[in-house]
Amino acid sequence: MAAKAIITLTTDFGLKDNYVGVMKGVILGLNPEARLVDLGHELPPHDAFQAAFFIYSAHAYFPAGAIHLVVVDPGVGSERAILAIKTGGQIFIAPDNGLVSYILDVRPDFVARRIENQDLMLPAISRTFHGRDIMAPAAAHLSNGVALEAVGPETKDIVRLPTLKPELKPDLIQGRVIYVDRFGNLITNIPVSEVEARAGGGLVIQAGPVRLNALAPNYQTAAPGEYLAVGGSSGFLEIARNQKPAHRPPELTLGTPVLVRRHD
Amino acid sequence: MAAKAIITLTTDFGLKDNYVGVMKGVILGLNPEARLVDLGHELPPHDAFQAAFFIYSAHAYFPAGAIHLVVVDPGVGSERAILAIKTGGQIFIAPDNGLVSYILDVRPDFVARRIENQDLMLPAISRTFHGRDIMAPAAAHLSNGVALEAVGPETKDIVRLPTLKPELKPDLIQGRVIYVDRFGNLITNIPVSEVEARAGGGLVIQAGPVRLNALAPNYQTAAPGEYLAVGGSSGFLEIARNQKPAHRPPELTLGTPVLVRRHD
Amino acid sequence: MAAKAIITLTTDFGLKDNYVGVMKGVILGLNPEARLVDLGHELPPHDAFQAAFFIYSAHAYFPAGAIHLVVVDPGVGSERAILAIKTGGQIFIAPDNGLVSYILDVRPDFVARRIENQDLMLPAISRTFHGRDIMAPAAAHLSNGVALEAVGPETKDIVRLPTLKPELKPDLIQGRVIYVDRFGNLITNIPVSEVEARAGGGLVIQAGPVRLNALAPNYQTAAPGEYLAVGGSSGFLEIARNQKPAHRPPELTLGTPVLVRRHD
Repeated sequence: MAAKAIITLTTDFGLKDNYVGVMKGVILGLNPEARLVDLGHELPPHDAFQAAFFIYSAHAYFPAGAIHLVVVDPGVGSERAILAIKTGGQIFIAPDNGLVSYILDVRPDFVARRIENQDLMLPAISRTFHGRDIMAPAAAHLSNGVALEAVGPETKDIVRLPTLKPELKPDLIQGRVIYVDRFGNLITNIPVSEVEARAGGGLVIQAGPVRLNALAPNYQTAAPGEYLAVGGSSGFLEIARNQKPAHRPPELTLGTPVLVRRHD
Repeated sequence: MAAKAIITLTTDFGLKDNYVGVMKGVILGLNPEARLVDLGHELPPHDAFQAAFFIYSAHAYFPAGAIHLVVVDPGVGSERAILAIKTGGQIFIAPDNGLVSYILDVRPDFVARRIENQDLMLPAISRTFHGRDIMAPAAAHLSNGVALEAVGPETKDIVRLPTLKPELKPDLIQGRVIYVDRFGNLITNIPVSEVEARAGGGLVIQAGPVRLNALAPNYQTAAPGEYLAVGGSSGFLEIARNQKPAHRPPELTLGTPVLVRRHD
Repeated sequence: MAAKAIITLTTDFGLKDNYVGVMKGVILGLNPEARLVDLGHELPPHDAFQAAFFIYSAHAYFPAGAIHLVVVDPGVGSERAILAIKTGGQIFIAPDNGLVSYILDVRPDFVARRIENQDLMLPAISRTFHGRDIMAPAAAHLSNGVALEAVGPETKDIVRLPTLKPELKPDLIQGRVIYVDRFGNLITNIPVSEVEARAGGGLVIQAGPVRLNALAPNYQTAAPGEYLAVGGSSGFLEIARNQKPAHRPPELTLGTPVLVRRHD
């Protein structure tokens, strides 16, 4: 009962080794009709926070029915659970280390189950590659129409990361840099709509040593390499640079506080 | 009316972020039958010239009906148009910055339309990611059989890059290096057939400080690391090295003039 | 007679250029139903040994009928043969430089044929890209149901690499590091089952300057960055590090001897 479900893959495995390809082999062996989509495999190893933002900012662009495999799993081989979480019409398969947290913040009506049914796993379970032995087969079986209930018992007790939401006051927003993309753009956890709502009388946006005074309509309004503040493609405030990277001061990186206030 | 069209993706987004995966989600949400092929995502950011060669040298290996998304878009959010160009039985979707130029040089019988029909875009258009919001949905709709006319008005006024053609004289060819591949091979804009036509009485091939006296039949005719001139897989003269990279002098790089003349 | 066969692609082409995408265009032009899976394209250029382990450790996770294209081909354009080898219900297409050796060690009941039938190649054969011109079309034709016999004559005389097997004595195993993954884990050619069989009275595992005294159940039993010995996901002994890479001494790398003996 192979079905044409979309299965996305997000890992910190990199593309040098055959680990991602092997997971695809396992999936296609069980469901030859699966439509596999690589979301990304270059996540910083073992970093659940960036991975959580990565899948959060991608998942809504996939249709209902999509199954997302997220394998950033520093605890592989330990007692941590592996979860199948259904919310918003999609299913997320991931170790229980908070990877789905930001999605559950905005889609709190979810069901989580521990994947424990060995009939849905590979015959031999290694100690170091549960992505291949447990998670990939679970995704394939679910894409074939196996019921979520079949994977294992429901659980309410799952790991959640601190909320992505910034502190929002009428005259001040306190957020932080939560992701740095390959262009060197710094994505914050501040919804750009909240910035726009405060933009009437002029703004000050302070990100580490960088101080900006307005939202730019696009990257071209700054000289090449200069910083500007824009509404990013995920709906968050971005501290971005036009074309060529400028020197980035070391104080401006992942976790750097970002303040937005009305101009004095 | 989902259909099994091939849609290729070429960007400068890299593979670190979820931008490419998100575009695929948008496409598969509109056409679950699309066959997605990554042509490459490691293009030098914002470099229309190398991207134009990249898609030019790949497109002919795809069958008629293929749709090519090419998103190297430093002008995103500005007033530059986004084009759907049909030529040679294939469709190219790209910002209007010359990306399709080299293809149009050899396939001058084309139709170009500006993509302006908002019914074929995502409901919300960001300022920074038209690949996701405009180009990916356009590709999906066209792959579903939407007529090219539906995307927007025809235009003749599109950006063209300088021609790829070298200067060809009976006793001298003046070309340049137009692409450097990961092996360190330097691809020129000189058709190897033009070199062969002049090879009767011996050749001098001068690429920066490197001087070669013949076309080699394959890489193995040089010692490991040494330069040789070969007919490359795209039909152009390549200044290549056998196996291990030799030191490459800094004068031998993208844009370096390459001269071919008969031996004195 | 397009068919839904899986075709995997393994190369040392990297992802910067369009070489892999072009091979996919060739395949899909001949078999639009092929399911293409990238196993990996970041193999060390021209290194048949690591490529042979790469495909060996991946192939068994794909179902019968899978066709594996392995293009690590320093001899391209020379007289080396190109082979289609059938074993274990799968087909391997690769230049004749030993890439399939480790698979044939464990699946010795194979048939090898030289790909020489020009009707199954692209019309023009370049000197530098047989992956595109010969191997990709062969894979596509075979996936369409063309008989293996059609590609060319059978051959027994193929290149074999030295066996992957370590020297196994009752009290001593002498192996070596055969692959280094992106996490810095060192994979050896020593089956972990052989180590476990000798673990009764305590073990000494010596890998270059690193000396370990037991098999660890998982990565977490070592402090971050410290070395430990684990049973890796391919069934081989791995010298791994928990999370952050520790300094790796230069003597501990590809080819480093690894000894396992009972504790004195």
